[in-house]
Amino acid sequence: MRIGVVAPARTVSRESSLRLAAFMALTYPDHDIVFHPQCYLEEGHFAGPDSVRAAAFLEFANDPAFDAIWFARGGYGSNRILDTVMPQLGPAARHKTYIGFSDMGFLLGALYARGIGRQAHGSMASSLGRNDKGESTGWVLGWLIDGDKSGLEPSLATDRRPAAAFNLSILTALIGTQWLPDLTDHVLMIEEVDEPLYRIDRMLFQMAHATQLKGIAGVRLGAVSAIKDNGEKEGTYSFGETIDQMIVRWCRDMNVPYLGRAEIGHVELNRVVPFGLS
Amino acid sequence: MRIGVVAPARTVSRESSLRLAAFMALTYPDHDIVFHPQCYLEEGHFAGPDSVRAAAFLEFANDPAFDAIWFARGGYGSNRILDTVMPQLGPAARHKTYIGFSDMGFLLGALYARGIGRQAHGSMASSLGRNDKGESTGWVLGWLIDGDKSGLEPSLATDRRPAAAFNLSILTALIGTQWLPDLTDHVLMIEEVDEPLYRIDRMLFQMAHATQLKGIAGVRLGAVSAIKDNGEKEGTYSFGETIDQMIVRWCRDMNVPYLGRAEIGHVELNRVVPFGLS
Repeated sequence: MRIGVVAPARTVSRESSLRLAAFMALTYPDHDIVFHPQCYLEEGHFAGPDSVRAAAFLEFANDPAFDAIWFARGGYGSNRILDTVMPQLGPAARHKTYIGFSDMGFLLGALYARGIGRQAHGSMASSLGRNDKGESTGWVLGWLIDGDKSGLEPSLATDRRPAAAFNLSILTALIGTQWLPDLTDHVLMIEEVDEPLYRIDRMLFQMAHATQLKGIAGVRLGAVSAIKDNGEKEGTYSFGETIDQMIVRWCRDMNVPYLGRAEIGHVELNRVVPFGLS
Repeated sequence: MRIGVVAPARTVSRESSLRLAAFMALTYPDHDIVFHPQCYLEEGHFAGPDSVRAAAFLEFANDPAFDAIWFARGGYGSNRILDTVMPQLGPAARHKTYIGFSDMGFLLGALYARGIGRQAHGSMASSLGRNDKGESTGWVLGWLIDGDKSGLEPSLATDRRPAAAFNLSILTALIGTQWLPDLTDHVLMIEEVDEPLYRIDRMLFQMAHATQLKGIAGVRLGAVSAIKDNGEKEGTYSFGETIDQMIVRWCRDMNVPYLGRAEIGHVELNRVVPFGLS
């Protein structure tokens, strides 16, 4: 298998790509991973200008020599290339798997909406050694290369319904746009990081009231990590509800079953969730 | 005129209501302002439980003795009472003006969507003495009581098209829900506070791609104040674009005219913007 890495949002270091290449050489010596030079660019917030990030993604996605695109890093920006890249994806792009999470949910969601290739939520190609000691990276590679399902979110072993997983900020930013896929009858898994509870509650309001999401089968809650202080002045008051109370309340308002937790998120235990039926 | 004040989101102090009552006694001694006791409640993040905030709003909105509802304060929470209050608004609620901004955009937007009463973006009933030295408060009262248009957003004097004004976070949280009003042919004014540029960019992406907003006449940008640092580590890099470059780019993507700045926002110069034709 030949895996291509591009960075539609923020930049990565050469060290992180060398780390992953070394890991691959140790674990999957017969398979290739290729980091596009665009990954190392940096311009303001982004790994190069929108046009350059779009071109790099299109180059690898439309190249039949690659079997999978593994996204390098999130951090905001992949939404800015959707209008450019989506109409230019050719036949080779349809025979690929795309994997990543967080900000990459914009691309994964749009690809799933258009039925282009196979999409999966999973750890990023720059996570190894930063917030992953090899487990999440191994789950991605095992699933991509060997079809190994041991790294999938555990509920997928018994719940045979289609699924999808999103960072909540990204899911809500897709609502009302043409890039939100049809998730009717899907189990929707969400995770969040670095937000205060009042903003999480506001995003759950939007999820619960989105007309596009009316037909989902149920919700699972991944890790909600690094929750930020809620007050104007730190520590002055608490929100008054826990994240578990919040998700139960909004699922009730949404009239869909809350199915429990999921092992995904901006944490070490970030399992693979193939979109659709796994 | 009799003005009722309720707090659908966060609590206010008795001092702030006494300040406003004193200001009214000096400027409009023949008119009344009544703070609902609910305004002073505090439970976790909110000015009392959802049910109590909803009941207070319904009590005043459905009371024919009040001519206007002036919202006390924003800060998150008015979205949580929409499903309860909107179906229970009776005939008296239709003969009222509702004024506030920021988080109150949830209620103003929903009321405008259902054609219930008259709505306006304007300073809050607790702003006086905090972030207003009397000018914004005077603009609200002058417009409410005397129909004085000198406090309106200046472009409304010459641009005869309908308008609406929202905090960008609130506007984007309404997208895809039944509570976003039809803004076809409207000039949409937006303002924001306390956000890093990458999040503002993400919200502008959603605004620009929202199918519900396709027919708007143009966009005006209010104050974008207290912009937060963009990096994981403070000051490590800049976003690479200014807010003026961002709004021009997204309006171009949206294919609507960018009409320039508006004198609204979380700043002293927060003008009144009646929804619809003023």
